[in-house]
Amino acid sequence: MSREALVFYSPVDSSAAWREALTAELPDLDFRVDPEVGDPADIRYALVWLPPRGFFARFPNLQLVTNLGAGVDALLGRDDLVPVRFSRLNDPGMTAMMTSYVVFAVTRYARDIPVFERAKRRGVWDYVHPRPLADIKVAVLGLGELGAPAARALAGMGYTVTGWSRSPKDIPGVASETGREGLERVLADNEIIVSLLPLTPDLRGILGAREFARMPKGAKFINASRGAVVDEAALIGALRSGQVAEATLDVFETEPLPPDHPFWTLDNVLITPHLASITVPKLAARDVAQSIRRMRQGLAPLHEVDPARGY
Amino acid sequence: MSREALVFYSPVDSSAAWREALTAELPDLDFRVDPEVGDPADIRYALVWLPPRGFFARFPNLQLVTNLGAGVDALLGRDDLVPVRFSRLNDPGMTAMMTSYVVFAVTRYARDIPVFERAKRRGVWDYVHPRPLADIKVAVLGLGELGAPAARALAGMGYTVTGWSRSPKDIPGVASETGREGLERVLADNEIIVSLLPLTPDLRGILGAREFARMPKGAKFINASRGAVVDEAALIGALRSGQVAEATLDVFETEPLPPDHPFWTLDNVLITPHLASITVPKLAARDVAQSIRRMRQGLAPLHEVDPARGY
Ligand SMILES: NC(=O)c1ccc[n+]([C@@H]2O[C@H](COP(=O)([O-])OP(=O)(O)OC[C@H]3O[C@@H](n4cnc5c(N)ncnc54)[C@H](OP(=O)(O)O)[C@@H]3O)[C@@H](O)[C@H]2O)c1
Ligand SMILES: NC(=O)c1ccc[n+]([C@@H]2O[C@H](COP(=O)([O-])OP(=O)(O)OC[C@H]3O[C@@H](n4cnc5c(N)ncnc54)[C@H](OP(=O)(O)O)[C@@H]3O)[C@@H](O)[C@H]2O)c1
Repeated sequence: MSREALVFYSPVDSSAAWREALTAELPDLDFRVDPEVGDPADIRYALVWLPPRGFFARFPNLQLVTNLGAGVDALLGRDDLVPVRFSRLNDPGMTAMMTSYVVFAVTRYARDIPVFERAKRRGVWDYVHPRPLADIKVAVLGLGELGAPAARALAGMGYTVTGWSRSPKDIPGVASETGREGLERVLADNEIIVSLLPLTPDLRGILGAREFARMPKGAKFINASRGAVVDEAALIGALRSGQVAEATLDVFETEPLPPDHPFWTLDNVLITPHLASITVPKLAARDVAQSIRRMRQGLAPLHEVDPARGY
Repeated sequence: MSREALVFYSPVDSSAAWREALTAELPDLDFRVDPEVGDPADIRYALVWLPPRGFFARFPNLQLVTNLGAGVDALLGRDDLVPVRFSRLNDPGMTAMMTSYVVFAVTRYARDIPVFERAKRRGVWDYVHPRPLADIKVAVLGLGELGAPAARALAGMGYTVTGWSRSPKDIPGVASETGREGLERVLADNEIIVSLLPLTPDLRGILGAREFARMPKGAKFINASRGAVVDEAALIGALRSGQVAEATLDVFETEPLPPDHPFWTLDNVLITPHLASITVPKLAARDVAQSIRRMRQGLAPLHEVDPARGY
């Protein structure tokens, strides 16, 4: 009879930290790190980030693949998947971290901080009368595991918040919009627009020249999701013309952002190196363990994703 | 029999906006703008910002002076006060605005944004592994009408928060310290220190060379209260040596900050022109009206301040 084991693969995450965190939750778990996998028939669970092509087919008894992160575009976009269940990480620490990034970036604009950064460089006391937070309209595109808590936090601070998602949502203090028409309204009606959309085939390049033109003149744009939901050339044009006054970008089509990329030279862009939210193994391991327990009982894993839907 | 009237005086606030907001709440209120005060004996209430010396003594039946702002240091520090009651403004809009400023400034440091601002100027992708918010210790000095909600909001976001005040506090998620010994502990134990202290005689210059030296090396300091709670020369020294790595300053000993002030030239200082929180007459008028109703009933006004205590 074969044993039940998990295989770990990641070019970036620490296998030691994950082994420690996960076996603290599931002491009986047989945690193996690729390529030391032993008998491939033992492997029921895979905890992976960007494994090499053909990886999954090596394990005949694989049941669950868990993506070592929230964004599953690189996983679900592969053509070598096998018919198992897929899930992703999510933990309260990751959610709190993303919310802090979004709250920071939105509030920086709401409180006119770029104006004061520029005044500082000129050595000038440049008073701009602040506006009540309720007068500032903020849109959050994508109301999933990270978008919904961020939208809720912004509403809790006093902003006027609208969210856009595939299915309608009922989040206290957050107006809900869906569909293409909903997106048109959301873009036209909000001065600060935050993307927390997943990179699915539907959403690739969803924010292009037409969408930036639809925003109110001088809009502010924040992208903490995936670079390729944006047409970067269109965003650069909008930032140069002032149609989009400011942008905060954590994610890019190509990462690290190449040294000669125009974003570096635009004074109205704040760049952060893809770290709006990270996973802490100690915090994320609880749900990974719970998913394994659920699979043992024949239940769906937590934070399941659907390859057909793309998120 | 004399009538009951309010006198308004401010070199900066709009009397028209205050008249509209206050008479919407109290339609029977006789709202007079200095110098058109009519019979001085009619004046029961004064709503003022920096009135000229001798102003209060002109009104023999004055009962309540309401300061057109939260900070009462300029009012209570005068030597021409008369023995009436004193109160200050406070409204949910002002509180939300101050909280947004503090959350912004703290999160900017917690998320290492100054590092990325500098990397941007050099065109460099400089990854700094983010720390979980709970690992970041933030102190709020002053837990009054603005400090307590700010501390609560920071704790709600996931930071580890300690507050310092005169009397012990029981704010969920916020450790409470008091007294000189408490201050010493708070300074030594927290990497981000926010001042929301009132400028009383006790607290003038409370943050000086000794206090900055007591902070952990590389601490971040945020002042949204009053400039003179800080010894500016000591802060400049600490910012130059790196003992204090970064500061966000909204308030200064002299405002507007003089063009030749060293703060302008320090790359590790973010300057905003005294607007962390402002009063919106429409929002603040409710409590001003309620205080007048309470005075008519022989009750204490809302947001009363004590000239002996200084806040
Ligand atoms: N920068 C970073 O450090 C970082 C860290 C973690 C994650 N991320 C990225 O953050 C993004 C959000 O992550 P998440 O975990 O919140 O995603 P999620 O839970 O999968 O949520 C996706 C959201 O997008 C909505 N959506 C999907 N397709 C849509 C469509 N065609 N039209 C309208 N709405 C659509 C979904 O609507 P329904 O709710 O109706 O299904 C859902 O609300 C992802 O791009 C992820 O890669 C970035
Ligand atoms: N930058 C801006 O735009 C702006 C706008 C509005 C206000 N402000 C300033 O913000 C500051 C805070 O305002 P607020 O309305 O929150 O003040 P507040 O309600 O008067 O609260 C003052 C706080 O300081 C504490 N405190 C007083 N003396 C102390 C001492 N000797 N030792 C320790 N703690 C002491 C008090 O302790 P207890 O609670 O125990 O009494 C209280 O918690 C003021 O300086 C105000 O001028 C700035």
